[in-house]
Amino acid sequence: IGRTLFNETHEAFRETARRFFEREVAPNHSRYEEQGHVDRDLWNKAGEAGLLLTAIPEEYGGLGGDRIVSAVIMEEQARVGASAVGFSLHSDIVAPYIFNFGTEEQKQNYLPRMASGELVGAIAMTEPGTGSDLQGIKTRAEDKGDHWLLNGSKIFITNGYLCDIVIVAAKTGNSGQGSADTSLFIVEAGLDGFTKGTPLKKIGMKGQDTCELFFSDVKLPKDAILGAPGTGFGMLMKELAWERLLIAILAQGAAEFAFEHTLDYAKNRQAFGRPIASFQVQRHKLAQLASEVSLGRVYTDECLRAEVEGRLSPAGAASAKCWVSEMCSRVIDQCVQIHGGYGFMWEYPVARAFVDNRVHQIYGGTNDIMRELIARSL
Amino acid sequence: IGRTLFNETHEAFRETARRFFEREVAPNHSRYEEQGHVDRDLWNKAGEAGLLLTAIPEEYGGLGGDRIVSAVIMEEQARVGASAVGFSLHSDIVAPYIFNFGTEEQKQNYLPRMASGELVGAIAMTEPGTGSDLQGIKTRAEDKGDHWLLNGSKIFITNGYLCDIVIVAAKTGNSGQGSADTSLFIVEAGLDGFTKGTPLKKIGMKGQDTCELFFSDVKLPKDAILGAPGTGFGMLMKELAWERLLIAILAQGAAEFAFEHTLDYAKNRQAFGRPIASFQVQRHKLAQLASEVSLGRVYTDECLRAEVEGRLSPAGAASAKCWVSEMCSRVIDQCVQIHGGYGFMWEYPVARAFVDNRVHQIYGGTNDIMRELIARSL
Amino acid sequence: IGRTLFNETHEAFRETARRFFEREVAPNHSRYEEQGHVDRDLWNKAGEAGLLLTAIPEEYGGLGGDRIVSAVIMEEQARVGASAVGFSLHSDIVAPYIFNFGTEEQKQNYLPRMASGELVGAIAMTEPGTGSDLQGIKTRAEDKGDHWLLNGSKIFITNGYLCDIVIVAAKTGNSGQGSADTSLFIVEAGLDGFTKGTPLKKIGMKGQDTCELFFSDVKLPKDAILGAPGTGFGMLMKELAWERLLIAILAQGAAEFAFEHTLDYAKNRQAFGRPIASFQVQRHKLAQLASEVSLGRVYTDECLRAEVEGRLSPAGAASAKCWVSEMCSRVIDQCVQIHGGYGFMWEYPVARAFVDNRVHQIYGGTNDIMRELIARSL
Amino acid sequence: IGRTLFNETHEAFRETARRFFEREVAPNHSRYEEQGHVDRDLWNKAGEAGLLLTAIPEEYGGLGGDRIVSAVIMEEQARVGASAVGFSLHSDIVAPYIFNFGTEEQKQNYLPRMASGELVGAIAMTEPGTGSDLQGIKTRAEDKGDHWLLNGSKIFITNGYLCDIVIVAAKTGNSGQGSADTSLFIVEAGLDGFTKGTPLKKIGMKGQDTCELFFSDVKLPKDAILGAPGTGFGMLMKELAWERLLIAILAQGAAEFAFEHTLDYAKNRQAFGRPIASFQVQRHKLAQLASEVSLGRVYTDECLRAEVEGRLSPAGAASAKCWVSEMCSRVIDQCVQIHGGYGFMWEYPVARAFVDNRVHQIYGGTNDIMRELIARSL
Ligand SMILES: Cc1cc2nc3c(=O)[nH]c(=O)nc-3n(C[C@H](O)[C@H](O)[C@H](O)COP(=O)(O)OP(=O)(O)OC[C@H]3O[C@@H](n4cnc5c(N)ncnc54)[C@H](O)[C@@H]3O)c2cc1C
Ligand SMILES: Cc1cc2nc3c(=O)[nH]c(=O)nc-3n(C[C@H](O)[C@H](O)[C@H](O)COP(=O)(O)OP(=O)(O)OC[C@H]3O[C@@H](n4cnc5c(N)ncnc54)[C@H](O)[C@@H]3O)c2cc1C
Ligand SMILES: Cc1cc2nc3c(=O)[nH]c(=O)nc-3n(C[C@H](O)[C@H](O)[C@H](O)COP(=O)(O)OP(=O)(O)OC[C@H]3O[C@@H](n4cnc5c(N)ncnc54)[C@H](O)[C@@H]3O)c2cc1C
Ligand SMILES: Cc1cc2nc3c(=O)[nH]c(=O)nc-3n(C[C@H](O)[C@H](O)[C@H](O)COP(=O)(O)OP(=O)(O)OC[C@H]3O[C@@H](n4cnc5c(N)ncnc54)[C@H](O)[C@@H]3O)c2cc1C
Repeated sequence: IGRTLFNETHEAFRETARRFFEREVAPNHSRYEEQGHVDRDLWNKAGEAGLLLTAIPEEYGGLGGDRIVSAVIMEEQARVGASAVGFSLHSDIVAPYIFNFGTEEQKQNYLPRMASGELVGAIAMTEPGTGSDLQGIKTRAEDKGDHWLLNGSKIFITNGYLCDIVIVAAKTGNSGQGSADTSLFIVEAGLDGFTKGTPLKKIGMKGQDTCELFFSDVKLPKDAILGAPGTGFGMLMKELAWERLLIAILAQGAAEFAFEHTLDYAKNRQAFGRPIASFQVQRHKLAQLASEVSLGRVYTDECLRAEVEGRLSPAGAASAKCWVSEMCSRVIDQCVQIHGGYGFMWEYPVARAFVDNRVHQIYGGTNDIMRELIARSL
Repeated sequence: IGRTLFNETHEAFRETARRFFEREVAPNHSRYEEQGHVDRDLWNKAGEAGLLLTAIPEEYGGLGGDRIVSAVIMEEQARVGASAVGFSLHSDIVAPYIFNFGTEEQKQNYLPRMASGELVGAIAMTEPGTGSDLQGIKTRAEDKGDHWLLNGSKIFITNGYLCDIVIVAAKTGNSGQGSADTSLFIVEAGLDGFTKGTPLKKIGMKGQDTCELFFSDVKLPKDAILGAPGTGFGMLMKELAWERLLIAILAQGAAEFAFEHTLDYAKNRQAFGRPIASFQVQRHKLAQLASEVSLGRVYTDECLRAEVEGRLSPAGAASAKCWVSEMCSRVIDQCVQIHGGYGFMWEYPVARAFVDNRVHQIYGGTNDIMRELIARSL
Repeated sequence: IGRTLFNETHEAFRETARRFFEREVAPNHSRYEEQGHVDRDLWNKAGEAGLLLTAIPEEYGGLGGDRIVSAVIMEEQARVGASAVGFSLHSDIVAPYIFNFGTEEQKQNYLPRMASGELVGAIAMTEPGTGSDLQGIKTRAEDKGDHWLLNGSKIFITNGYLCDIVIVAAKTGNSGQGSADTSLFIVEAGLDGFTKGTPLKKIGMKGQDTCELFFSDVKLPKDAILGAPGTGFGMLMKELAWERLLIAILAQGAAEFAFEHTLDYAKNRQAFGRPIASFQVQRHKLAQLASEVSLGRVYTDECLRAEVEGRLSPAGAASAKCWVSEMCSRVIDQCVQIHGGYGFMWEYPVARAFVDNRVHQIYGGTNDIMRELIARSL
Repeated sequence: IGRTLFNETHEAFRETARRFFEREVAPNHSRYEEQGHVDRDLWNKAGEAGLLLTAIPEEYGGLGGDRIVSAVIMEEQARVGASAVGFSLHSDIVAPYIFNFGTEEQKQNYLPRMASGELVGAIAMTEPGTGSDLQGIKTRAEDKGDHWLLNGSKIFITNGYLCDIVIVAAKTGNSGQGSADTSLFIVEAGLDGFTKGTPLKKIGMKGQDTCELFFSDVKLPKDAILGAPGTGFGMLMKELAWERLLIAILAQGAAEFAFEHTLDYAKNRQAFGRPIASFQVQRHKLAQLASEVSLGRVYTDECLRAEVEGRLSPAGAASAKCWVSEMCSRVIDQCVQIHGGYGFMWEYPVARAFVDNRVHQIYGGTNDIMRELIARSL
């Protein structure tokens, strides 16, 4: 069934994004994978091309687009399997925190530079000892009168290695109630005591930098805090539906990408003198995959429409994140199988898709956590 | 996510249908199951209530509604688990054949009486020896100059026992090409040589009559044919997308029905001093089911919207039939399990749902046949 | 892979059992299903044929066979889909309770008559309000000095309608610790205040009687108790591994039965001018089913060997019950599908198998309870 | 359930193997992964330790062990996740070809040196254009009177980069019947015209060398042929059951390895103040995995017993390969999920297990090909 989501602006955007990913990203992707991160100047190029902070108003350097624009960019990223690129986290997660909860000064200070690619943004919640249970973090910022003193460490931070600013979740209170004790800080790279690990070696998403961050007596200016002390947890909760939908959109794009490659492969690869796609089991498998991908597409689009119209529930987003990420894995697993031995070779897009996209079930809240959320809404 | 499909007319219709199913059908359903068919006069009552042929124009006794109205009626039927009722086949499959392909006389003759419930309609394609392969039917109508002579037998015919007219697919040609040799006939019950078996004993849908029909030298008037000789196959193909979507809608309704019963049960049934729904495995299972049901709902609604707008592809409908019917079985199977021993007891709605709804994967073209269709479109 | 479990005695037994099920049971099975229970005299015939209490020593009227003999009988029962027959519960669950925990008098009194079929045995633990949580039962036996006074009700009791004696779990203590307060009683049918409901209507196993039992001020003689007061729970736990293995064996037999019927059907049924079994998707489906059935067979046999050698762990038996019952449902569901419309018709063995065998996931402790047990052993 | 397969010799062997893998392999495995192959001298060390060609008689340098010894070695390899090591292919596939079909001279020439690790063996059937369809190979050896002239190329050859000898399947006839035209040759590395690619980059098994081999006018001595011309296909078929069982054994070992790591992790990792393993969904997941792993273990052991006793059918081995490899993927996928973010990090054993073991469904004949085989036996 056709999609009914896009207007001309969106389509124009798609063109720009497609060109960028095909010309700037695709040819360099293997190199990114080797080095464990994209080239730093890719961010600047993306800024120039107008691909960053598209949903932030123009007065802050953004493009004033809607969330469908954000989705379009991710779809185009998925179309070339460019798992190395962390634009979406930067533009659609980090920037909105500053835009929604920051002071006018913070917005003026950071957003335009994030839009241009001068600053790369990250967000650091997870710690070695705690991921699902955000209230259990140990990183702490002490109010020292004229500054905050930050101590602790974070792990698995996307864009962490290249980031210039990172929003850090830290305990500021002692009430014992995690949700009331948590605050968010904008921490700039380069501060004394803030060091980064080397990009972590992962089974997939090898070009996307994922880092440990260490904070040892880092002095933060008083105005590094985002919103009021103790309101961090609330802020984190507010945009979760959108953040989860983002993952669904990525996973959906990846499933489509892998499916199309596989359909193509199956039509061309010969065995026993016939195209693979002519064997009934493969034909039915492809039909099954097509159905699942189509279901996911319709659901994701409907969620996106709901999101834009302000009526996407957290449970709806959690369903999308959960179901689409599992569908994505299921589909790609079959795509690998249909490729035979080639499905195991790094240079084949579905092989990389297999390892890259396993993560969608894990981050942004594991799927078990999603089911907890959905269950609570029943 | 909320539904955005219905206008006020639809909702008014829903009210009428809900009242009818609750008052006229639900209290008698067990009896229908015992006797293997609904009471004959239920049809007349449904006609009076304006629940038949809603999508047929008013000039032919219908209500001139759209297909969303048809869906609304089916949803309400599913809401009370009324698997005995065959209105949808009568109104949304049989009547459209006559409306779309019949002569003015045939329309005038049959449609108003079908709308009032005076005539019950059925359609007979499947034969003991052939179901999936429609071109392989053996029933044959010989052109005897002033009449057609019909011989053969049909099996698994819904509404067959109570039907007053039945559209019969029969071979009329000898080209050897099944698709070119097939014609459709409107056969009236009561004709000499046309006999019916007793309703078949099934594992579910026990109240819905499913019959064998036998034609032994049945003389049909020349104008009993629908459309031109040899065009039967084409007619059958034309409305298939809609017919399959109908099954998806039924299956979707059934999945929701079972899920709601189960959610309710799980919240109330206690074990180990706590509601079943408070055990994490059950909570996550319910969350999983909720997701799947929600996916199916969004997809079915989108297909229905596409159908109404004339853009539902056969493959899209096949995907819906296939995926939703399998989801329906998966979901209801879990619902049974969550009910423990009660899930195996006939009087529990989910128990009946388990056996009733298994059929959606089978009729209207088995799901394998659906996958063939989808595959062909890739 | 071949089976290596049976010696000549076992095989001789298989012959007897096969003959009995084919001659005495199969021809009457539909009737049993209509009436909701087997004929009472089937029990006597089975006793005569030496099919009851085969594992009980000869001095108590049994045959002194091992548990492989019990398995052989169940396999033969499964081979004809004779779900109506409750011999296994009677011989391999109820009788061992009396044999293992009864006084010499109780053994002499009941076992020989159970072996001959003069007495039909049942065991009643489940109550309307509690199934999984056995410690939560409400049925209570008060010690009235010279008798026990039994009050309460039981549900879902296999062989309940025809039973002559039933082992009833009841609370006798007030410690508040379910496990220490529970006792078992041998209750004879015919006692004042003991009434039976009519056989419950189920979706499957329609010929097997499953009943509610009501105890209203039933006076039990002092020696009706099995073992010491308060030891009931311990007794129930002791033979659980075996009881669960029995279910696995039944489910395994049913899966094989359905698979064989389906393989046969698929080789003979034609569609599009070819046997169903010649379509690659069906061929691969059959291969998949064959693998799963074979896995289950090897595992069940190995568990049986372990059981006979006294080294089957509760977790091992729980695994078998859980995995085999789910495999059984999965396999039979596919078997139904391969039968097309016929898979939905009561007269087809796989159709009945579909509804009959769903129960294995539920009774004997639901599969969730099995997973609890397995988890505890990890 | 306990295993009953091993005698003291086997257990002694297990000790040796365990020590070897723990001391010689585990500490170097990451380096093997970096370089894309094991160190060449690991082969010599393994030879010295008596871990190569254990099933070949002592007169040819082997150890005269049975196939259970081979299994023991593989289990120990799996126990440390040592996917880089290709001993099994060398010892249990390549050597038997020479032993079973070679001339006395060939045996004397190659086997002792293979046993010592002086020669590394490989077998090359697959070509870029054909994998599943072995009869479709294009590599050809022309009989030039005093030598064979070999031309063609092979892909995905395990041990290819380090191999000293490789058994190459090539066409020698022109009958058009692939099976009658195929011969096997023992080709020594170093021959003119025989070149190797660099190890292929794969998503997993990164330390195991998998190579392309190119033959351009390679002159082979007349006695390089194994068996008679045109008998290659028959030889390939003969040991297939064993070769497939080997894959099942590896996959089974890997599933157990991952499960044990995960059980351990789940008991120790805390979230929300409790061990992960204490959440009911995780507990039940672990129970489910334990069941599946246990099923696979019992089946694999039974197949191994059957193999040793000469009664393992090709279909039985295909079932084992197919079911166990899929179970292995299913289990490890869940293990990854239970590890949360750590499941995606290369340094975690389950992360590597996830990518390493996906291949079992693909090589040795894809699982679709297995299902073809099983289906043929039904
Ligand atoms: C590639 C990648 C990028 C990432 N990027 C970022 C980032 O930019 N910023 C950031 O802050 N984090 C990031 N993360 C971290 C990610 O959000 C966490 O890994 C994730 O939330 C899970 O936390 P954990 O790894 O600590 O798992 P745990 O919390 O330790 O969970 C382990 C397992 O226990 C289960 N579990 C936990 N609680 C329950 C419960 N109550 N009931 C049942 N099961 C439970 C989980 O589902 C999981 O299966 C990233 C992770 C990855 C892999
Ligand atoms: C309750 C009920 C109501 C029904 N109502 C009606 C009705 O009103 N009118 C009517 O005409 N019919 C009706 N049917 C019949 C129904 O449409 C057929 O049962 C269905 O189309 C399947 O046909 P079959 O039973 O002959 O199965 P078969 O065609 O014999 O198929 C058997 C199996 O083979 C598979 N198969 C067939 N062809 C292929 C292939 N090419 N490749 C792979 N697999 C294949 C099928 O998927 C199926 O699994 C009804 C059936 C039921 C159960
Ligand atoms: C055909 C048939 C024959 C039977 N024969 C007998 C008989 O002869 N004698 C007899 O005593 N009983 C018999 N039973 C009863 C049977 O043993 C119970 O139905 C079964 O144990 C489940 O109990 P319940 O129905 O009360 O379900 P409940 O205990 O109410 O369970 C409902 C649901 O909750 C789940 N659940 C329960 N506890 C937990 C938990 N802690 N964590 C997660 N999930 C949980 C269950 O898995 C199930 O899905 C029979 C049942 C049937 C259907
Ligand atoms: C790590 C690794 C190590 C290997 N080691 C060796 C080695 O040492 N020596 C060696 O010779 N080879 C080796 N191989 C090759 C391996 O055996 C082949 O990859 C495998 O047999 C599949 O062949 P293919 O890749 O050409 O897939 P194809 O044959 O192209 O198959 C593609 C897809 O089509 C499907 N398909 C094919 N035929 C049919 C059919 N009739 N019906 C339905 N579906 C069909 C397959 O199942 C698969 O899904 C190795 C492969 C890998 C990945």
